[in-house]
Amino acid sequence: MVGGGRDAFIGAVHRKAMALDGQIELVAGALSSEPGKARASGQDLGLADDRNHGSWQELLADEQRRPPGERIDFVSIVTPNHVHYEVAAAFVEAGFHVVCDKPLVHDSTQAEALVKLVRKGGTVFGVTYNYTGYPMVREARHLVRTGVLGEVRKVTVEYNQGWLATAVEEQGNKQAGWRLDPARSGSAGTMGDIGSHAENLAATVTGLSLESICADLTAFGKGRQLDDDGHLLLRYSNGARGVIIASQVAAGVENDLRLQVSGTLGTITWRQEEPNQLVHSPIDGPRRILTRGSPWLCESARLAGRLPAGHPEAFIEAFANVYLGVAADIRAHLAGLKADPLAADYPRIEDGARGVRFIEKVVESALSERKWTAFT
Amino acid sequence: MVGGGRDAFIGAVHRKAMALDGQIELVAGALSSEPGKARASGQDLGLADDRNHGSWQELLADEQRRPPGERIDFVSIVTPNHVHYEVAAAFVEAGFHVVCDKPLVHDSTQAEALVKLVRKGGTVFGVTYNYTGYPMVREARHLVRTGVLGEVRKVTVEYNQGWLATAVEEQGNKQAGWRLDPARSGSAGTMGDIGSHAENLAATVTGLSLESICADLTAFGKGRQLDDDGHLLLRYSNGARGVIIASQVAAGVENDLRLQVSGTLGTITWRQEEPNQLVHSPIDGPRRILTRGSPWLCESARLAGRLPAGHPEAFIEAFANVYLGVAADIRAHLAGLKADPLAADYPRIEDGARGVRFIEKVVESALSERKWTAFT
Amino acid sequence: MVGGGRDAFIGAVHRKAMALDGQIELVAGALSSEPGKARASGQDLGLADDRNHGSWQELLADEQRRPPGERIDFVSIVTPNHVHYEVAAAFVEAGFHVVCDKPLVHDSTQAEALVKLVRKGGTVFGVTYNYTGYPMVREARHLVRTGVLGEVRKVTVEYNQGWLATAVEEQGNKQAGWRLDPARSGSAGTMGDIGSHAENLAATVTGLSLESICADLTAFGKGRQLDDDGHLLLRYSNGARGVIIASQVAAGVENDLRLQVSGTLGTITWRQEEPNQLVHSPIDGPRRILTRGSPWLCESARLAGRLPAGHPEAFIEAFANVYLGVAADIRAHLAGLKADPLAADYPRIEDGARGVRFIEKVVESALSERKWTAFT
Amino acid sequence: MVGGGRDAFIGAVHRKAMALDGQIELVAGALSSEPGKARASGQDLGLADDRNHGSWQELLADEQRRPPGERIDFVSIVTPNHVHYEVAAAFVEAGFHVVCDKPLVHDSTQAEALVKLVRKGGTVFGVTYNYTGYPMVREARHLVRTGVLGEVRKVTVEYNQGWLATAVEEQGNKQAGWRLDPARSGSAGTMGDIGSHAENLAATVTGLSLESICADLTAFGKGRQLDDDGHLLLRYSNGARGVIIASQVAAGVENDLRLQVSGTLGTITWRQEEPNQLVHSPIDGPRRILTRGSPWLCESARLAGRLPAGHPEAFIEAFANVYLGVAADIRAHLAGLKADPLAADYPRIEDGARGVRFIEKVVESALSERKWTAFT
Repeated sequence: MVGGGRDAFIGAVHRKAMALDGQIELVAGALSSEPGKARASGQDLGLADDRNHGSWQELLADEQRRPPGERIDFVSIVTPNHVHYEVAAAFVEAGFHVVCDKPLVHDSTQAEALVKLVRKGGTVFGVTYNYTGYPMVREARHLVRTGVLGEVRKVTVEYNQGWLATAVEEQGNKQAGWRLDPARSGSAGTMGDIGSHAENLAATVTGLSLESICADLTAFGKGRQLDDDGHLLLRYSNGARGVIIASQVAAGVENDLRLQVSGTLGTITWRQEEPNQLVHSPIDGPRRILTRGSPWLCESARLAGRLPAGHPEAFIEAFANVYLGVAADIRAHLAGLKADPLAADYPRIEDGARGVRFIEKVVESALSERKWTAFT
Repeated sequence: MVGGGRDAFIGAVHRKAMALDGQIELVAGALSSEPGKARASGQDLGLADDRNHGSWQELLADEQRRPPGERIDFVSIVTPNHVHYEVAAAFVEAGFHVVCDKPLVHDSTQAEALVKLVRKGGTVFGVTYNYTGYPMVREARHLVRTGVLGEVRKVTVEYNQGWLATAVEEQGNKQAGWRLDPARSGSAGTMGDIGSHAENLAATVTGLSLESICADLTAFGKGRQLDDDGHLLLRYSNGARGVIIASQVAAGVENDLRLQVSGTLGTITWRQEEPNQLVHSPIDGPRRILTRGSPWLCESARLAGRLPAGHPEAFIEAFANVYLGVAADIRAHLAGLKADPLAADYPRIEDGARGVRFIEKVVESALSERKWTAFT
Repeated sequence: MVGGGRDAFIGAVHRKAMALDGQIELVAGALSSEPGKARASGQDLGLADDRNHGSWQELLADEQRRPPGERIDFVSIVTPNHVHYEVAAAFVEAGFHVVCDKPLVHDSTQAEALVKLVRKGGTVFGVTYNYTGYPMVREARHLVRTGVLGEVRKVTVEYNQGWLATAVEEQGNKQAGWRLDPARSGSAGTMGDIGSHAENLAATVTGLSLESICADLTAFGKGRQLDDDGHLLLRYSNGARGVIIASQVAAGVENDLRLQVSGTLGTITWRQEEPNQLVHSPIDGPRRILTRGSPWLCESARLAGRLPAGHPEAFIEAFANVYLGVAADIRAHLAGLKADPLAADYPRIEDGARGVRFIEKVVESALSERKWTAFT
Repeated sequence: MVGGGRDAFIGAVHRKAMALDGQIELVAGALSSEPGKARASGQDLGLADDRNHGSWQELLADEQRRPPGERIDFVSIVTPNHVHYEVAAAFVEAGFHVVCDKPLVHDSTQAEALVKLVRKGGTVFGVTYNYTGYPMVREARHLVRTGVLGEVRKVTVEYNQGWLATAVEEQGNKQAGWRLDPARSGSAGTMGDIGSHAENLAATVTGLSLESICADLTAFGKGRQLDDDGHLLLRYSNGARGVIIASQVAAGVENDLRLQVSGTLGTITWRQEEPNQLVHSPIDGPRRILTRGSPWLCESARLAGRLPAGHPEAFIEAFANVYLGVAADIRAHLAGLKADPLAADYPRIEDGARGVRFIEKVVESALSERKWTAFT
């Protein structure tokens, strides 16, 4: 693992997700950009001294020195965004499989370079768009892709949070600090952090190609250089229309990610805060509440669950599903086989690259003011 | 009553709303544009023969002939949209109070002419934006207007229905027929029918001034001349941002109107399909579920309810609240008094006129294609 | 109408329910046991002086004097419980149709006498167990009665309210005053007031015969002579088991009536506070949310609704359905016909009498302490 | 670990719960009563050969042979019920800490013997009543214990499942097989399996002492020797009343465990299928939705969570909290310290013993038929 040391929020989540199913063991790390903190964090986690490094460069060098059978199987990159590119590129070039947090990198140039490297090396590269790891999102994808909704006409993703409603970045909140800093976060704030999840969720479930975007981004917090709120109109190449609403200033709201997709034959709705159910409203019968763990779900949704229906699974389990997908792909790779697509079901480097381009285009659209009609 | 004869959906709703509280009696009518049907409809409802007319012109003439004490107190206009203007204008000019369905008229010219007539005559004129008659919408208005939410930053209104998902207008659905016909419905379809409710709800609750609009309207149904789906980005003069989503092709969805308003201090959410509760998420404490009938609601919300908490009220009761507001204003007018604003709480001619302008501007914006940034 | 004068809660509800659909007009009354208050209340409601009486005896005498065509069609009795019997008996004996609030009378002797009178006179007699007027309760009945749930095994009714959690009867709450007074309320408090609704709901939906009862009634409020809380175990003659929980001291709870019925093939759940939906969990597929106004409901549920799905109806509309059922039966009676059972769908005198017996047996069971096994 | 081999449901859950937080490592096992299956299961999980045993006796003997620093810190017993006693007693006597699944043992004699052994040895003994590991159950306990609800009057626990609605025990469902077999499951079926969870939940949250029980147990499935459904009336020593409803034949229902507690000042409601929220209805203000991860929760509830509000946690995380509590106690024990009660928060041997007594008394009460009053 690179990044994720003491005080880091998401690093600990990655570790729990890896540990949950007993398939992945954390054996080496460079857990902070600050060597002392990196090593102290590694000691907290019980890393052996010779695999607890002060920098990712040392980690990489050490792993390369080891005989193949004693090396890590993959590296997980959970640093702030601006570090992703160089770490990922270096590990991919050295032939290691990689899991990287989203958004993948800062711009399309980096993203395309990384895609090329991965394709050249043929290594496994997963991006932790964790929300698409939820079993009921997989069921949603199944319903859309198999035509149960008919032709898709309308996609709405709302992703509201309230944690940036006040100036927490001035009060020592580290995550707010880097998320709102263009140098570390990239060209977008909220749109990069959670708008990118919204894009990935819509794309994963519907498989539609985005054709054009009309964006309104706002920084409500005083002095913020990056957006903390945004609204997007979307057009898809098949004629479908979409809306993305993303906000981190929806005061009092927790982590309210919702997806609604309407097709000619029905509508599905999923809410991350109640992730074990998917609502399906067909045009010709009563609403159906599909629940995780039910025998009538698609195989992909069933495989993504661990417990019977009514025994809820949640965020960490969905996150772990991304790791399980990567692990299945790496195992197949090690065995010289093609992975079973049902098992190796995780967001790929191409999803990450598309997400970066999405952020760029949203920012470009937001800068254009021609779109407005005065209401007088 | 003008309009609302046999087979008309909304006319029957108006009559139940009028009857509910025992304050309004239907005594005269011209219930259809077709004289025979008008009279047959009046007979169904037990109208006296001498007050059951074949046309609104006859109704008006008859009422004008009667001595003041025997006249109707007001007329309720529940025809398709294209008839509103001439009927309303004639009754207002003749000095009658009026209740008129929304959208008020076809264009701003008519709307402004009507506003002038009403102001000149000093008569009462209510527009049945019925959703703002819900007690919990009044509580929402109270929370926003008294600063409980702080400064408003974000307004989202979603209004999805599915009844136009298939070509019902070709299968004898009369309401679909006129709603999708520009001659009878005006320049917008879904945006006129339910987008106008969304606009009124946002404006009533927040009191914010709309500054500019960016609209994407779509007609998904083959051969439809008017939109059956639309997405709007909104900017308000105080810097707040908004989104309106309205659709009548969200297959399988019933009447899913939702409002969410976020301010610096919290967020409120209201859903029409569960109208007895308002969710308030303050920034500094747990979510609160405010319920109709509770003693801690504002006076306006309490006055708008009839039953104790937990004994739900719904659509007809909210609709009746609009009529109660108009009735209170007419009673005050008859008594030569200024009405108590708490009692005479209903959408006015100005709300109706603003709604017409809103539709015009949405259509204007939708025609501009400059707004899009290609996603390639 | 007898009873329901100024300050009475339920009388006003009855009047709105009668008025809603334009089929019933209130023309005469004896609205209080106190003559002055009775007449003042009648004036508030616009009753003609000659039909606004100081006592129910005067009302009855006056109606009997009138020629048949000028008489009331039926009387609605909305007094406190202890008055029901003598008023109902007198009107039935005089040949009038009756609607009477629940619980019907104080004891089985009265109930049986009344049943005999009604059967002898052949008049219409409805009891306002209003909750069974909800369309989705009718759908629940349909699902159970047509075998969709298989054989019923388990019935749970919970009816919790919190309005008696404090000593409101000592603070001028008139309804609490008579509800907790054995002289006016009968042998049971909460069990008579809302336990009787629970019994009626279970019986109406399932049609099962109760075989035996084991009851625990409690008066939590200091000095109360009647129960304000109760728990019942039930056994039905087909082997099914049941539980009724009823409380008026569930502090902070509004009017939380729930029904759950499980059979061999599935389970249905209905909540009065969200009355427009019925949840059906079949054993072999996803949960279904059946909603009022949907075309796939049974005819009885469809007839009980006024508005399309998603336009909620609620308490008053359900109450009005009881009146519509009575009205249909009276109209058939006046026409000398047998009423269409789909239209004349309302709780009968026999339901009322069974409810009285239920209360008696619950109280009898509660007095037996033999049932308890010490936990030591 | 003892038990939990291939095909066992709950063993795998225990392992995920142990692994989640990186504090517990599975190093040895006797994973089945069948030696071959035991070892094969251990191989699946990567146990070293010398710690992968064919019987629990071998496991115990091997651990006792090892020097103290190389021994297991505790054993987790996840076998069917009838094996619990001898395994637990042997490990406790040998000085090992123990985690044991519920219900603890078959009867009070065994339970008391085990309590004595644990007290004598001073070892740590946790019972996996996993539902009380949910953060919001801890918040519920806090609200009740600190008087926010006032004096408790009423406790309702409903625990409905549908997985035994059909004769799955005849179709190869192993869990159903032993759960319904008195030899392996004890004197109760559903009441032992999930009724015991209900008892523990009520006792943990309220701290009330049960005084007496009145039970109705039923075996709906043909030929079943143990109950698959039960209803209990409860009386507590402070005068509070309770109801427990438990069923495994509620066809179509998943794992619907609900708790409702009413006191003089309000009511709380918690549902296991939506475990991240606790509804608190105070008597004097709007309902509050308390959510896991919120800063205003009690310290115990905050410590039991891993993620911010809105990032749901669920069943496995709650289960892991029981293990974290045991681990904290063992760590304190190893360090010779008294554990911090906030950290060492888990169900103890005494909770397990009380649960066994509860099952005995319920069965005793159910056998008495004196309790019923005929309804004729």
